[in-house]
Amino acid sequence: MAIRVAIAGARGKMGQEAVHTVMKNENLELVAVLDYKEIGASLAETSLFPESYQVPVYLDLKKLHAETKPDVLVDLTSPESVYEHTKTALQLNIRPVVGTTGFSDEELNELAQMAKEAKLGCIIAPNFAVGAVLMMKFAEQAAKYLPDIEIIEMHHDQKLDAPSGTAMKTAHLISNQRPVHGQGHPKEKETLRGARGADYDGMRIHSVRLPGLVAHQQVLLGGEGQLLTIRHDSFNRGSFMSGVVLSIETVMEKEELIYGLEHII
Amino acid sequence: MAIRVAIAGARGKMGQEAVHTVMKNENLELVAVLDYKEIGASLAETSLFPESYQVPVYLDLKKLHAETKPDVLVDLTSPESVYEHTKTALQLNIRPVVGTTGFSDEELNELAQMAKEAKLGCIIAPNFAVGAVLMMKFAEQAAKYLPDIEIIEMHHDQKLDAPSGTAMKTAHLISNQRPVHGQGHPKEKETLRGARGADYDGMRIHSVRLPGLVAHQQVLLGGEGQLLTIRHDSFNRGSFMSGVVLSIETVMEKEELIYGLEHII
Amino acid sequence: MAIRVAIAGARGKMGQEAVHTVMKNENLELVAVLDYKEIGASLAETSLFPESYQVPVYLDLKKLHAETKPDVLVDLTSPESVYEHTKTALQLNIRPVVGTTGFSDEELNELAQMAKEAKLGCIIAPNFAVGAVLMMKFAEQAAKYLPDIEIIEMHHDQKLDAPSGTAMKTAHLISNQRPVHGQGHPKEKETLRGARGADYDGMRIHSVRLPGLVAHQQVLLGGEGQLLTIRHDSFNRGSFMSGVVLSIETVMEKEELIYGLEHII
Amino acid sequence: MAIRVAIAGARGKMGQEAVHTVMKNENLELVAVLDYKEIGASLAETSLFPESYQVPVYLDLKKLHAETKPDVLVDLTSPESVYEHTKTALQLNIRPVVGTTGFSDEELNELAQMAKEAKLGCIIAPNFAVGAVLMMKFAEQAAKYLPDIEIIEMHHDQKLDAPSGTAMKTAHLISNQRPVHGQGHPKEKETLRGARGADYDGMRIHSVRLPGLVAHQQVLLGGEGQLLTIRHDSFNRGSFMSGVVLSIETVMEKEELIYGLEHII
Repeated sequence: MAIRVAIAGARGKMGQEAVHTVMKNENLELVAVLDYKEIGASLAETSLFPESYQVPVYLDLKKLHAETKPDVLVDLTSPESVYEHTKTALQLNIRPVVGTTGFSDEELNELAQMAKEAKLGCIIAPNFAVGAVLMMKFAEQAAKYLPDIEIIEMHHDQKLDAPSGTAMKTAHLISNQRPVHGQGHPKEKETLRGARGADYDGMRIHSVRLPGLVAHQQVLLGGEGQLLTIRHDSFNRGSFMSGVVLSIETVMEKEELIYGLEHII
Repeated sequence: MAIRVAIAGARGKMGQEAVHTVMKNENLELVAVLDYKEIGASLAETSLFPESYQVPVYLDLKKLHAETKPDVLVDLTSPESVYEHTKTALQLNIRPVVGTTGFSDEELNELAQMAKEAKLGCIIAPNFAVGAVLMMKFAEQAAKYLPDIEIIEMHHDQKLDAPSGTAMKTAHLISNQRPVHGQGHPKEKETLRGARGADYDGMRIHSVRLPGLVAHQQVLLGGEGQLLTIRHDSFNRGSFMSGVVLSIETVMEKEELIYGLEHII
Repeated sequence: MAIRVAIAGARGKMGQEAVHTVMKNENLELVAVLDYKEIGASLAETSLFPESYQVPVYLDLKKLHAETKPDVLVDLTSPESVYEHTKTALQLNIRPVVGTTGFSDEELNELAQMAKEAKLGCIIAPNFAVGAVLMMKFAEQAAKYLPDIEIIEMHHDQKLDAPSGTAMKTAHLISNQRPVHGQGHPKEKETLRGARGADYDGMRIHSVRLPGLVAHQQVLLGGEGQLLTIRHDSFNRGSFMSGVVLSIETVMEKEELIYGLEHII
Repeated sequence: MAIRVAIAGARGKMGQEAVHTVMKNENLELVAVLDYKEIGASLAETSLFPESYQVPVYLDLKKLHAETKPDVLVDLTSPESVYEHTKTALQLNIRPVVGTTGFSDEELNELAQMAKEAKLGCIIAPNFAVGAVLMMKFAEQAAKYLPDIEIIEMHHDQKLDAPSGTAMKTAHLISNQRPVHGQGHPKEKETLRGARGADYDGMRIHSVRLPGLVAHQQVLLGGEGQLLTIRHDSFNRGSFMSGVVLSIETVMEKEELIYGLEHII
């Protein structure tokens, strides 16, 4: 039987992708969407979706639950509303799948406690791209055997921060697996400042920004006579959808809160 | 205390690298080498090694054992002699680390039985390149989540067989993790025969042969909006040495036969 | 002064991109579009463009010319109509920039003759992606020095034909620069048929098809101890727009027909 | 008829490669080598070459010339001796092919004058790797059309300086072709210092240093919706030999001094 899914934030960029993904997946049924303002009685009444998307829209999660009995609430809204949604969902016996960051440690602890008591799965994932999570996981594992590592991340030139969040997270995970050790020759010299990149516990991170690029990262692990490269290219938002589907399927089998896709892969 | 190591096949290309690697590693001590013909009393007497390599050469493994008491025998000889060496080593309480393929299933079973009874570690590894083994392992793991996969292997143009053994092994491991499913569009058409590469259970393998190349492989795993690439470059024989050292260290802690570096990584 | 541009085929995928590109470029002015059916008096009246796009729509090129006096006609329509458009444009003193293939040799000769007599530039380009054209050009130049070459092209798995048109064109250009010579060892053996890819005059072409991929090609040129790789990634249709703009600017300075972006780069 | 070649510096790493390369090439004949100290009467008498290399060794270039009449002197010695060798060669009517840098501008001018007057070819090349020179040349050409550029160079971790000389030269050549313009968003922010690499006239250069790597560089050129990558991998010293042969052949047809392989490619 299909898993009954509700989506909060269906009009956003990620939300629209999620709507299409659930509608097309025969193991899932989109029973309702949750919005914070009047957008019509069904998705079809907005101009964003085709006529056939006769999915009812609710402004209140309790009413949504009473009338459509979803198994899972996929929440792709903003950090402001996501905490309340998740709490209410757990109280209503709905399993949350949440795609935003921005919970405080206190909030996470409270939600973990609630999930545990209710024996309900709850998955919170800052990054739904399965490939990116695999890249981080593999880099972490390989660091034990090939501890000399540099990260090159490449993004479009409208990105403001460098290094990217994914690069920082990758470096953080790796640094748990290897002793701090500087890379390059101890006497190496930058004749142009910055050439050797950013230093994270001795590892080097390089951030490339060019028009045309989307979101790409490679982790290079060098050893005597060899190089292991783990690379992820994200070409568009569709890359997140495999993680959303995996989370929906997995949350049904869990009885606790799980933070990070890496723990269900 | 350093692990006492003997090497069989020290004059071969791999063997010479192994000699240097063990000599330079302070946790290992090269106590003897085994050869099948007279080459002088010590490595220094061959023209292949420096004057300081005063390591005794033996033609008989029993005598070698009696006089130098090695903990481990690293065997890099040919398939013809390796089975007898390994059997004798186990009888003498020496732990074998073997770098050649070519055992029959029967021989493997017998050696496994002997190792188990003697409670001795014995590691047999067709491929000692840690990075290549990690690549295969990661490809296998990722195939569960991203089952659309193609392999591109690239070697120098003197290589006779295509695809390479590593590509075949990688495909074999992956095919255990995913259902057979064809790739590309069902109606796709080769306007030049061979363009879509070799078909291995629906996966595609492409073999590039060019002067200048050494030994390289990439596994490409595609999913909606994303691509995960796991690549290994082997630039020279030194790439095998990390696996030799890891095997020597690990074989001391085992009490059974292990086939394949992937089981100790 | 801005170049006055008209676009035929403005509602197609390429056409829409071209409309936005011309509208945003301050050296260009979009004075009219040509369509074959009634779609409203201006682009703003279709649902495809914003309210501010008050660009008049014409069904007849002569009337369009009489009322808006374009310097250049960018034609992104289908092969059926493009020949008539181009001929009429040249008669009206408008310089054509054409983005479709499918002219017969006879038609090309006639158009070349007309352009020459009228001393009007006319650019016909099967591929507007500047980067792809540079890749082909560089591969052709490098083949003189590094004649051992393999091509790997990678596309999404909905593509029906293999190898891609760009790969075939690249191989064709290269084969003009080097003698036919087989690659790989003369005694090489495919243990799985197709592993060595398609054979084009001794060169090898490999076609990868995976979900997630867009349009990518790399040309690998091997020599003793080295590899030169020329790679082009096309992430979306925007990649063609640099070539469209370059063609509009260049066609104003020419007095003849030019076939292929490579001749103006 | 074969070109008669003499080599200075035949015992060095590059020199040994050059000896083998000339010996194997049927269009070339190795008639003599020049050394600064007694090493025996022929190459075969050193322990570095096989018995069959019966090539006479000279300590004096004039005597070498009198007895063996070479057409070309390939000079792979150190900067100290190379200037005198080159001057003497030109006086003796021998065409020099020189693989070291380190001439002063004054010396270069003098040698250029001598070559011109004698109508003798003379090729001085800081980098003999044909592929690396092609990479630089293509990057320079492409910069006109895709002016947003970053360079990633990767070397073994024993290299002391960053960026590499080749990366600096590439950036220098590119900067002649494009106006200085900063890359990345004007408001971009490094949260870890150095992440965005070194700044060369607005271009970014990133230097990776890992064990196992040899000498690799990629030039990335981004444009709307696309990326052009030009990459060179140098796996061993053999990569220089194609440039040595090309220079020997070309110097015979020239009547002047040429500085840089890029001017004969």
